[in-house]
Amino acid sequence: VARRELIVVSNRGPAGYERDASGERRTNRGAGGLVTALRGLLAHHDVTWIASAMSEEDRAVAAEGTIEEQGRDGSPYRLRLVAHDAEAYDLYYNVVSNPMLWFVQHQLWGLASEPSLDDRFHRAWHEGYVAVNRAFAAAALDELERRPEAAVFFHDYHLYLAPRFVRDARPEALLAHFVHIPWPQADAWRVLPEPLRRAVHEGLLANDVVGFHTARWRANFERACCDLLGLRPGNGSLEHEGRQVLLASHPISVDPGEFEELARSEAVLSAERELAARRPERLVLRVDRTDPSKNVVRGFRAFEKYLEAHPEAHGRVGMLALLDPSRQDVPQYVEYLAVIERVVDEVNTRFGRDGWAPIELDVADDFPRSVAAYKQFDVLLTNAVYDGLNLVAKEAMLVNERDGVLVLSENTGAHEELHEWVLTVNPFDLAGQAEAIHAALELPAAERRRRWEAIGAHVREHDLAAWLRAQLADFDRAAAG
Amino acid sequence: VARRELIVVSNRGPAGYERDASGERRTNRGAGGLVTALRGLLAHHDVTWIASAMSEEDRAVAAEGTIEEQGRDGSPYRLRLVAHDAEAYDLYYNVVSNPMLWFVQHQLWGLASEPSLDDRFHRAWHEGYVAVNRAFAAAALDELERRPEAAVFFHDYHLYLAPRFVRDARPEALLAHFVHIPWPQADAWRVLPEPLRRAVHEGLLANDVVGFHTARWRANFERACCDLLGLRPGNGSLEHEGRQVLLASHPISVDPGEFEELARSEAVLSAERELAARRPERLVLRVDRTDPSKNVVRGFRAFEKYLEAHPEAHGRVGMLALLDPSRQDVPQYVEYLAVIERVVDEVNTRFGRDGWAPIELDVADDFPRSVAAYKQFDVLLTNAVYDGLNLVAKEAMLVNERDGVLVLSENTGAHEELHEWVLTVNPFDLAGQAEAIHAALELPAAERRRRWEAIGAHVREHDLAAWLRAQLADFDRAAAG
Repeated sequence: VARRELIVVSNRGPAGYERDASGERRTNRGAGGLVTALRGLLAHHDVTWIASAMSEEDRAVAAEGTIEEQGRDGSPYRLRLVAHDAEAYDLYYNVVSNPMLWFVQHQLWGLASEPSLDDRFHRAWHEGYVAVNRAFAAAALDELERRPEAAVFFHDYHLYLAPRFVRDARPEALLAHFVHIPWPQADAWRVLPEPLRRAVHEGLLANDVVGFHTARWRANFERACCDLLGLRPGNGSLEHEGRQVLLASHPISVDPGEFEELARSEAVLSAERELAARRPERLVLRVDRTDPSKNVVRGFRAFEKYLEAHPEAHGRVGMLALLDPSRQDVPQYVEYLAVIERVVDEVNTRFGRDGWAPIELDVADDFPRSVAAYKQFDVLLTNAVYDGLNLVAKEAMLVNERDGVLVLSENTGAHEELHEWVLTVNPFDLAGQAEAIHAALELPAAERRRRWEAIGAHVREHDLAAWLRAQLADFDRAAAG
Repeated sequence: VARRELIVVSNRGPAGYERDASGERRTNRGAGGLVTALRGLLAHHDVTWIASAMSEEDRAVAAEGTIEEQGRDGSPYRLRLVAHDAEAYDLYYNVVSNPMLWFVQHQLWGLASEPSLDDRFHRAWHEGYVAVNRAFAAAALDELERRPEAAVFFHDYHLYLAPRFVRDARPEALLAHFVHIPWPQADAWRVLPEPLRRAVHEGLLANDVVGFHTARWRANFERACCDLLGLRPGNGSLEHEGRQVLLASHPISVDPGEFEELARSEAVLSAERELAARRPERLVLRVDRTDPSKNVVRGFRAFEKYLEAHPEAHGRVGMLALLDPSRQDVPQYVEYLAVIERVVDEVNTRFGRDGWAPIELDVADDFPRSVAAYKQFDVLLTNAVYDGLNLVAKEAMLVNERDGVLVLSENTGAHEELHEWVLTVNPFDLAGQAEAIHAALELPAAERRRRWEAIGAHVREHDLAAWLRAQLADFDRAAAG
């Protein structure tokens, strides 16, 4: 692999800092999704990573400028933390990015009553989202000053405007952006007033490469640019302000070796023994964040309908929901978690009996327990309203040991790759989801095995390393074009 | 005008019946929007109109088969009422058509929590919507038996499946459909499970002509057919099952002569005197049904923000909301009306003072009063979330006598025609709507006059008769092609 100069820009970085009781600086080398996905870059390339300072100690690190760090495997890279104004960051993160952009892109707004964009929102846009994006752009420009040949690689919905600010100052720079969440059709973007939705699309078009997980999200972006900005439809690329912008789709994946090792780790084996000792005869699993986009409540209602229709399953089939509590700073998420807990109570009260609760709900951030459950399920339910990809589906099928069946929402990115081997569900159709749970449990053993093997083989072939290679190949195509 | 044989099919017909105390049959010649729009057909063509029997006496008329009727101007036509099974009709009308299809097409669902399609909905689809559409198709086929040269002209979202049933039995018939409400993008349709959204699109594609108000709705339909059915993009038409389907857009309009006459009627003059005697110095008007798609609540909130920012307007500027109560059989509509009343109370409590309430709310079906208010407003606020066209905008600007300014949502069909002469608002942007109300009131007199004249001239030129001629010209193009 040719070694490249890369400047990675993401809101959350690969290392955070705190000061312990003795006054020593301690480094946390995070395991968040984005950082895990990009870790491969550190091993093979010359990386400078720009991210937000989150903690007090992060701000101290930010004041030191660009520092030398290392990844979990010891690979050296440079880290530059950006200390934002605290109020600007709150507006950027908790008002604009979440919930506004997240809700727009997952189509979660109930337009009859929400959102209402008031003065506070407009202020959050200008003094929060624009300001933080400008700060990221300034840091990227400063790094480009030192490494003018580096490619800048932006990530996700926090940073739609930064590429434009960089482009304005550096017309010749190589800029790329990967969007990890769905790109909806133009009407969803029309929730934002015209200047704002225009800024989002023009911001992304300031890159040389814009990547998405699926052809569906990529096509939605292309059409939205045509509808909202008047661009002409391209063929895998768009012309904007005299430049060609390459539109790419590469579904992210996992590192199979890492997952197989994890599955054999003591933490997972211990959690698995605990789980195996008291699992129901047939286990329906879901593993998600408590995010409305994940559609947890409808999943419970569908399981309730399954139990209604199948008394023979009572006492034998159970649902285990391992939910990581998410974004409890945002009111919609607090409410959603409360509804989750209420609905579980309802279903368990209705159908539970001595020694058997239909649903076991575990709200915690416990990855070894999730991996243990991945190994143990008979049916994995992933019924997301919308989901950029849904990595749980790939992770879980990879380490499952019971020829588990994947029930997968047609609105997940993973569906585009895996649809021929899954039971497809419409996320709004409770009756259809209840039938799919039943069908999955009744699937003949040979058929379960065939599908499970096919998905495993697909994920091993299209792994995380292949995803990173495809991204970098796009950089070369864009540089050559 | 060449006289044509037409079979018009719509859920609600141009005449209904009841039996009075003395046992005599009484005929109500309705003035609903669709009937008003199509009245011109009765005067010039040989029309058979098929519609649902609504009342007990309608069912007696239905039993008599096809009867001779006459329009309000005495034009003769034939009427055939179809008596549906009462439960099937309820499922078709109150479960599938409203709210499901209406909410899909106006993008009103809050997908995080609604809708959930349960067994009841699936039953409503099959035993309600499919069954009633089959009954309409059977009636149309029976009429076609007698008049094989007649063109069949279907209307609106109640009847998406009927054309397919007619086509299957009559491959050579000339079938057309006009959709009076917005056509959303494919993702909105993905709320319905695959077989249902496919049935909707294939049902419409069984026509020779499918008409919409605007190029935007037409383009959404064309793309949705490509996305959902795999059709190839056409150029104003689509090929489906070996036939060419013409896609048309013609914005509906009003009869200017009728409106000018109405504006001089005693009922309107009397209401106008009453209104003029107690109107505020500057009048902001809205006239709507109490439908969540009309965005009444955000309109009040925007007016509240206007009052917050402009103390000088207190006591001088008032909002009059004339709201026709709508669909009170549907729970969402009952709730919406309750919220409307609560928000008006809040704003009036907050800003009202002796002799001045900021908002006057009048929930009633009183058309003369609406026309009186059309004449009197200074600013008309039409901020719909989505609206197929919004005829109120055209009606009101036509008869207004104060160089009134139109504040118009970018998501109304009328916006495509009128945008250069209106103040455009984003329906979700309260701050933007508050600013638009202020800007409209501050617009210089000459500018107000220029815009008001331009809209009036546009509506007079593109009137209802022109809309009907364009539809019939499409029939000829389709027959020739």
